[in-house]
Amino acid sequence: MCQVLGMERKGLMHSDQKTRFSIKGKPVYHYCAVSSFSEYTVVHSGCAVKVDPLAPLHKICLLSCGVAAGLGAAWNVADVQKGSSVVIFGLGTVGLSVAQGAKLRGAAQILGVDINPAKAEQAKTFGVTDFINSNDLSEPIPQVIKRMTGGGADFSFECVGDTGIATTALQSCSDGWGMTVTLGVPKAKPEVSAHYGLFLSGKSLKGTLFGGWKPKSDLPSLIDKYMNKEIMIDEFITHNLSFDEINKAFVLMREGKCLRCVLHMPK
Amino acid sequence: MCQVLGMERKGLMHSDQKTRFSIKGKPVYHYCAVSSFSEYTVVHSGCAVKVDPLAPLHKICLLSCGVAAGLGAAWNVADVQKGSSVVIFGLGTVGLSVAQGAKLRGAAQILGVDINPAKAEQAKTFGVTDFINSNDLSEPIPQVIKRMTGGGADFSFECVGDTGIATTALQSCSDGWGMTVTLGVPKAKPEVSAHYGLFLSGKSLKGTLFGGWKPKSDLPSLIDKYMNKEIMIDEFITHNLSFDEINKAFVLMREGKCLRCVLHMPK
Repeated sequence: MCQVLGMERKGLMHSDQKTRFSIKGKPVYHYCAVSSFSEYTVVHSGCAVKVDPLAPLHKICLLSCGVAAGLGAAWNVADVQKGSSVVIFGLGTVGLSVAQGAKLRGAAQILGVDINPAKAEQAKTFGVTDFINSNDLSEPIPQVIKRMTGGGADFSFECVGDTGIATTALQSCSDGWGMTVTLGVPKAKPEVSAHYGLFLSGKSLKGTLFGGWKPKSDLPSLIDKYMNKEIMIDEFITHNLSFDEINKAFVLMREGKCLRCVLHMPK
Repeated sequence: MCQVLGMERKGLMHSDQKTRFSIKGKPVYHYCAVSSFSEYTVVHSGCAVKVDPLAPLHKICLLSCGVAAGLGAAWNVADVQKGSSVVIFGLGTVGLSVAQGAKLRGAAQILGVDINPAKAEQAKTFGVTDFINSNDLSEPIPQVIKRMTGGGADFSFECVGDTGIATTALQSCSDGWGMTVTLGVPKAKPEVSAHYGLFLSGKSLKGTLFGGWKPKSDLPSLIDKYMNKEIMIDEFITHNLSFDEINKAFVLMREGKCLRCVLHMPK
């Protein structure tokens, strides 16, 4: 956690608590210190990272919340080991990035749980070995996962943004050493709760923001990995639209038809 | 977790689901596969451990739930590092054992929180550097801990058996990397709950039964540590009573006047 800048949520610059943008005299605020949806921007020097000048910006823009967070959750936070079993709840960009991270670490089983059967095929590309449609199950999810993994997954990941699913993820990982990592930001009930017995049996619950990467020091090497074809990014880009079609992009996202849509500024 | 024997709670032997004791024809059940409060007992071979024959049984009997669990929580579960800050909620035998474990690892700050001021002096013996009487505070505990540790403890331990205190412990550890270990078995509300934001900031919550030790393989070396004077056990024994005074021992425990009372069989 950056203690100087924190999670900037006021839409203002750190130094003078003012904004750097305006339209017709009205202020336009910075979002989370990033100020995206703009060709040029002003950020705190602590938020600027120098990267390989040959890296295509319309691809590496994905190494933000979604893809980097998922890879980091698998590598930095859970530290997934070769031969282990993994279950991922929610197969959006974050969940599929966790799958990619787990696959690259040599996980033996990568179960992916989602309510959208259309995601099954896509999920294979990123390393998911078994797709589970949770709407099709006639018994509780943890019971199914425990049977498929011989006692519970070594690692489970909550990538939906639902504190109830964080509990399900805890129930689905192995007694003794199972670890649950929660990545989602819940829209409703903000309290994660679970029976103390799950912890007493040796399970652990971790959370992460941005996958435990320190952007300033770690982003350049992630981008190098992409340039060396060690990680996939292009495969997450299901749509490319021009900036004036931004609302169409939001519709695609809400319909679950889109992983990542890159918006291009008009030339 | 032992998958064969599990946590035996039926009071019966694993092999034939029968008890080995009786009084006047009525069965006497085994407790948690241990069957203590008896000079001689029958246990599953998986529960019998060969130890140094010179080790005094009336001392090493403490290397069970309390002392071993606390040392293991500090060493195996949290893996407390030299120079780190630690806060312990509840200074009974378990909490003081965590303190001893943290001290032996070279923790720089070991804060002990309890409602019983009589424990302050005893706590120092085991390594607690600062005693905090939570009944004396005019502000929330996490705020006090964060100020004393410069942002939150690296490790916090819940040793009371109160899921509410598990939440307080999570709030008291550091953003980014703080770890909370819960050891207590709650008497009331069995659900641990905490705002997802605590996890998102990088904190983790772990639980443990018997401090992560595998009794069969690890107990002998713990006993060797005692024999080599590397760990303190004697200091936990505040009372020695004969077996027929067992009810007096329970009273002492409930009054908070006793850490561990060893019961001696009549000669």
